[in-house]
Amino acid sequence: MHILISNDDGVYAPGLAALAKALQKDAKSVCVVAPDRNRSGASNSLTLDRPLEAHTHDSGFISINGTPTDCVHLGVSGLFSAERKPDVVVSGINAGANLGDDVIYSGTVAAAMEGRNCSLPAIAVSLCSFHPKHFETAAEIVRELLQRLESLVLAPRTVLNVNVPDLPLDQIKGIHVTRLGHRFAGEAPVQTQDPRGRTRYWIAGTGEPADSGPGTDFYAVAEGYVSITPLQIDMTHYSGMDNLALWLEEMN
Amino acid sequence: MHILISNDDGVYAPGLAALAKALQKDAKSVCVVAPDRNRSGASNSLTLDRPLEAHTHDSGFISINGTPTDCVHLGVSGLFSAERKPDVVVSGINAGANLGDDVIYSGTVAAAMEGRNCSLPAIAVSLCSFHPKHFETAAEIVRELLQRLESLVLAPRTVLNVNVPDLPLDQIKGIHVTRLGHRFAGEAPVQTQDPRGRTRYWIAGTGEPADSGPGTDFYAVAEGYVSITPLQIDMTHYSGMDNLALWLEEMN
Amino acid sequence: MHILISNDDGVYAPGLAALAKALQKDAKSVCVVAPDRNRSGASNSLTLDRPLEAHTHDSGFISINGTPTDCVHLGVSGLFSAERKPDVVVSGINAGANLGDDVIYSGTVAAAMEGRNCSLPAIAVSLCSFHPKHFETAAEIVRELLQRLESLVLAPRTVLNVNVPDLPLDQIKGIHVTRLGHRFAGEAPVQTQDPRGRTRYWIAGTGEPADSGPGTDFYAVAEGYVSITPLQIDMTHYSGMDNLALWLEEMN
Amino acid sequence: MHILISNDDGVYAPGLAALAKALQKDAKSVCVVAPDRNRSGASNSLTLDRPLEAHTHDSGFISINGTPTDCVHLGVSGLFSAERKPDVVVSGINAGANLGDDVIYSGTVAAAMEGRNCSLPAIAVSLCSFHPKHFETAAEIVRELLQRLESLVLAPRTVLNVNVPDLPLDQIKGIHVTRLGHRFAGEAPVQTQDPRGRTRYWIAGTGEPADSGPGTDFYAVAEGYVSITPLQIDMTHYSGMDNLALWLEEMN
Repeated sequence: MHILISNDDGVYAPGLAALAKALQKDAKSVCVVAPDRNRSGASNSLTLDRPLEAHTHDSGFISINGTPTDCVHLGVSGLFSAERKPDVVVSGINAGANLGDDVIYSGTVAAAMEGRNCSLPAIAVSLCSFHPKHFETAAEIVRELLQRLESLVLAPRTVLNVNVPDLPLDQIKGIHVTRLGHRFAGEAPVQTQDPRGRTRYWIAGTGEPADSGPGTDFYAVAEGYVSITPLQIDMTHYSGMDNLALWLEEMN
Repeated sequence: MHILISNDDGVYAPGLAALAKALQKDAKSVCVVAPDRNRSGASNSLTLDRPLEAHTHDSGFISINGTPTDCVHLGVSGLFSAERKPDVVVSGINAGANLGDDVIYSGTVAAAMEGRNCSLPAIAVSLCSFHPKHFETAAEIVRELLQRLESLVLAPRTVLNVNVPDLPLDQIKGIHVTRLGHRFAGEAPVQTQDPRGRTRYWIAGTGEPADSGPGTDFYAVAEGYVSITPLQIDMTHYSGMDNLALWLEEMN
Repeated sequence: MHILISNDDGVYAPGLAALAKALQKDAKSVCVVAPDRNRSGASNSLTLDRPLEAHTHDSGFISINGTPTDCVHLGVSGLFSAERKPDVVVSGINAGANLGDDVIYSGTVAAAMEGRNCSLPAIAVSLCSFHPKHFETAAEIVRELLQRLESLVLAPRTVLNVNVPDLPLDQIKGIHVTRLGHRFAGEAPVQTQDPRGRTRYWIAGTGEPADSGPGTDFYAVAEGYVSITPLQIDMTHYSGMDNLALWLEEMN
Repeated sequence: MHILISNDDGVYAPGLAALAKALQKDAKSVCVVAPDRNRSGASNSLTLDRPLEAHTHDSGFISINGTPTDCVHLGVSGLFSAERKPDVVVSGINAGANLGDDVIYSGTVAAAMEGRNCSLPAIAVSLCSFHPKHFETAAEIVRELLQRLESLVLAPRTVLNVNVPDLPLDQIKGIHVTRLGHRFAGEAPVQTQDPRGRTRYWIAGTGEPADSGPGTDFYAVAEGYVSITPLQIDMTHYSGMDNLALWLEEMN
């Protein structure tokens, strides 16, 4: 299996190194293509206004002066010869959770989605803690998932969003399939002044969980389980289409 | 009705001005908060590493040195007093279509999603042409939708993605509710060299439509209809959860 | 005379428009090439890591997604045909003074220096006020200087740095040739915290004048005179060379 | 002696590490504050539109998400307690020459100038080769200069610009005090097209030396000598002031 690894914390992030190290044990090849610096919050942004540059580090990791999506896009279709074309994309290990609405903004999840847009199975993995320690736990979980990946039949255009409690591996209680929970809106932006007296606005932190009961990704992680949520790239709200059509008919 | 308008083409874009002009006819207030420059392809990226600045132009439009998501976030919760808090968010009029997979990368759609994340109804609107001319057509369509918005019952956390053919209003055949189509993967990145001999990679254009038959947004627009797709913010792939759980059981 | 105008406040700045308007009265052609947004403090930075894009506005002004130096570089040697090659570069009118040590950091002065590096006479002009009003005063002063430019013999690789008091033209007392004054070091950076509790440092304002007596640019402007300082691009400190050589001899 | 080291190639550059290693032998303390990524060509640009963040690496080096000038500014006056306030600023070792007109655009030289603006002696050091190898040669030269720095009487507001041939130390012929040479204007920008068919302009390389005879920095390095040029921060062209004043008198 040829594995392409990326992330949004940047090429020097410890979670990236831990993931590459663990996956090298089983893989035919592991290629790492990651942003040259922290691009957390990049979502699925693509760099269209300038050409990107690839820099190969002593570690063999490749950095790109772009977004996580750029990295996977180049890793799948631009940088490597056909015989090293990846079979799967893994994004992470993110330093911090990607739960509920976080997935909309997350560069970690976006990197996996880009893999899926390039027709590859893709996994995003995050370690759930503000000061994460147990990257090797998350790395080992991903390694086990990959070992059995071939037997998994997933709907097309679906990625797996994996969140791992920041615990030693032997304290992980198991793996739960979950739905995304939901956060309250975050706090209002923090108003401040620059030294020249001009008003500035800091986007504040994310909100507290609003829907975090049993069945959600929030709940699983809080209980000490790995959470895996299948995410769909097709955002069509199918069940809402009829109602919308009725409303439009009345309008005409 | 208090309306917040944003976009991803930037505060000087003609589509933004056309939208604001049309909506001012009926609204109690129209506030425009848009990026200070073109941020196409920004997706849902949020600016977390620096505080943002708001600049009020002679036109009354406010520009932010950030992303479309930043603009809506500040427009809903930071910039205005409580009595001007918006009732609805409209994003656009984008100069170019946002069909199928485009919605993942689109800053226009992201601005609407941020409105919804802030608990407001939200509409993204795009004019489908590389050199768009008939912004007033799209503006008029949105105006009509807003006039009847109160009677629309949408599932929570859903936005409307509206794509309008670039035609005079009287040549529009009607409005169709659609699902997102799907594009083939785009072409491989274009390899080039900078003047110092280093290799660079341009992300190439989006792919051709792969799934664009009847029922899709691609089809509706190509046939001369306005396409409206309800998009859900919750990306959980519910119908894939059971299969995934079975697979995991075998693993344990 | 073909005139190339640039600035560092960006293509939408009122000082740029005022300058272009005034110089169009006498010139054979006036071309404006300016940054697409405020690039104050850009100094002589050049954009080497991405190719630049030129956008022509309805006003005829051209904006570049780069620095003031980029703008002049492209304006002199890339954008225009040979018959419109500029004879002189004028940078400004900057909204705020460029006095003393400011010239090191100033994008306005850098744009003029780039003109000189391209072998053209070049003038930087700034209006000395935090909330400048009388752009037409500065514009008129530049126009008069240009009318007589051909009779000025300047040392090679020298630019003129012009600072104008923010007064109506008839209240300007005259023009003084000055040397650069000198500021005290600015205040220490302002320490602050972002909403996630991380320490941040704002570079604070510039220092107060330390050397601002008669003969300096600070003094002339404070007294109501236009200040013109000839600046050299060759930074060699010739008179210090002998002393340095002696010191090195002792070392060997 | 407390030494502050910065550069413009970024915190991960090998020239920075080589310099820090060599200077640690003699110094009371060595603090490294460098940009978080390559900022070549940054000149004296200062970051005024956002607060900066300092990140301490495992190596003890501190990176700033800003320019070389920002780094020195914070290193002198914001980051360290009074007892570790630096006595001298050294910038480099740049991977590539900074000769003649290069100093105007150079972030390496700018970092030294900022040290001098903060009233400290300051040295910029560059290794003259496109693929530099002998960083330890340049490091050793700087170390020797610093050992004797206290006996050097330099004019106020002067920095030393040191360029070292890329040779083993025992092949260096000596040290010459030089004046800045001068380059021809660089080639015209390279016109290219992005994948969406829009014209783009790459700033091309610097020009060939035009004034590179005996006495210049170009000449010394080409002959196998270290070049040291004293640079002045005061850009007033004193000897041109009288001529300019005469010209203005005729105007009135």
